[in-house]
Amino acid sequence: MKYFSKNQIENLPRIYRLNLINSSTGYKSANLIGTKSKNGNTNLAIFSSVTHLGSDPALISITLRPKTVSRHTYENMIETKVFTVNHIPEHYIADAHHTSAKYPKNFSEFDQTNLKPEYKKKFYPPYVKGSPVQLGCKFINEYYIKENDCSIIVASINDLFVEKEIIKEDGWLQLDKGKVVAVNGLDGYALPKLKKRLEYARPKKNHK
Amino acid sequence: MKYFSKNQIENLPRIYRLNLINSSTGYKSANLIGTKSKNGNTNLAIFSSVTHLGSDPALISITLRPKTVSRHTYENMIETKVFTVNHIPEHYIADAHHTSAKYPKNFSEFDQTNLKPEYKKKFYPPYVKGSPVQLGCKFINEYYIKENDCSIIVASINDLFVEKEIIKEDGWLQLDKGKVVAVNGLDGYALPKLKKRLEYARPKKNHK
Repeated sequence: MKYFSKNQIENLPRIYRLNLINSSTGYKSANLIGTKSKNGNTNLAIFSSVTHLGSDPALISITLRPKTVSRHTYENMIETKVFTVNHIPEHYIADAHHTSAKYPKNFSEFDQTNLKPEYKKKFYPPYVKGSPVQLGCKFINEYYIKENDCSIIVASINDLFVEKEIIKEDGWLQLDKGKVVAVNGLDGYALPKLKKRLEYARPKKNHK
Repeated sequence: MKYFSKNQIENLPRIYRLNLINSSTGYKSANLIGTKSKNGNTNLAIFSSVTHLGSDPALISITLRPKTVSRHTYENMIETKVFTVNHIPEHYIADAHHTSAKYPKNFSEFDQTNLKPEYKKKFYPPYVKGSPVQLGCKFINEYYIKENDCSIIVASINDLFVEKEIIKEDGWLQLDKGKVVAVNGLDGYALPKLKKRLEYARPKKNHK
């Protein structure tokens, strides 16, 4: 195996290190976050840091760097306290990735791509039309991570929309039925296929 | 689409809600975390909350519920300040899932499965032999999330081992070359296949 020490990682060229470290923790969810500023400008940006935080109450977390790339999303989130999380199906990969381009704040990524906004249940920010799983979320809290100036946002799930074909009897969503993609590092888009769904694990009867 | 309001989610049967909410944020990385207590007991547990936090310095975050399921891992982490993160290849799915069974603390999941410990670079906790990407991590800080009593652990990457076949010229790891799996909800294991790796996104020349 190839080995990298902490010291070697620190001395790698910047882009090499970005690629290596971003892909070293495994596949991540690829989500489009939709927001709308108080004065009505919509914004759409791709994130790979949306994580499950709890199911009762239903909470998610998102890691953000407020001062850099995700600034418009962050500003709208703080200003309006609401946003949407939308899963990315395979045929949206190119447009979803393009939302990471740095446009001025008054430009909407909905105008720069073929992705269409969708408004439902009187929720203020837009969903992404055609996304197979859509979450309407409310900002609850922000934790400042002093080690590298990130913020971790905690939000509640207020509305949840799911394509009927992917929801199973016990509430589980079979994401591959919606052709939902996962992200590998910063720019690799992969299509997962379900291999096995396993039973709740219990200790073996005869422990060694 | 099927719609769930916040109120409906709160009133779902517990298992249905667990399945629905755990799968609603998309695919997650599946990682085995290896620890060893001060008195030498090894522990191995599967997690889906290991997230990239930053690449310079190389930091990861992990969401834990210290008082419940992940207790042995958490205790060893706090006691020794070191742990390993190991990617799960397809042929380890059943054993990796079995590490979620609740064994007493003096039982090692390495004895209850076919997974083998591996010690490298004098790092105290065990890696999982045969895992295609292995991270040796040092605990740095813990943030208490008051909304649901979770903790978010911040850790640095101290050692990184990668199978040679999956690392590309620019540092990016092509995870599907290592048959690395992703997790869909609590118990669905999926095998992703790379579809596209895209260029750094730049604004279109003629903004609309």
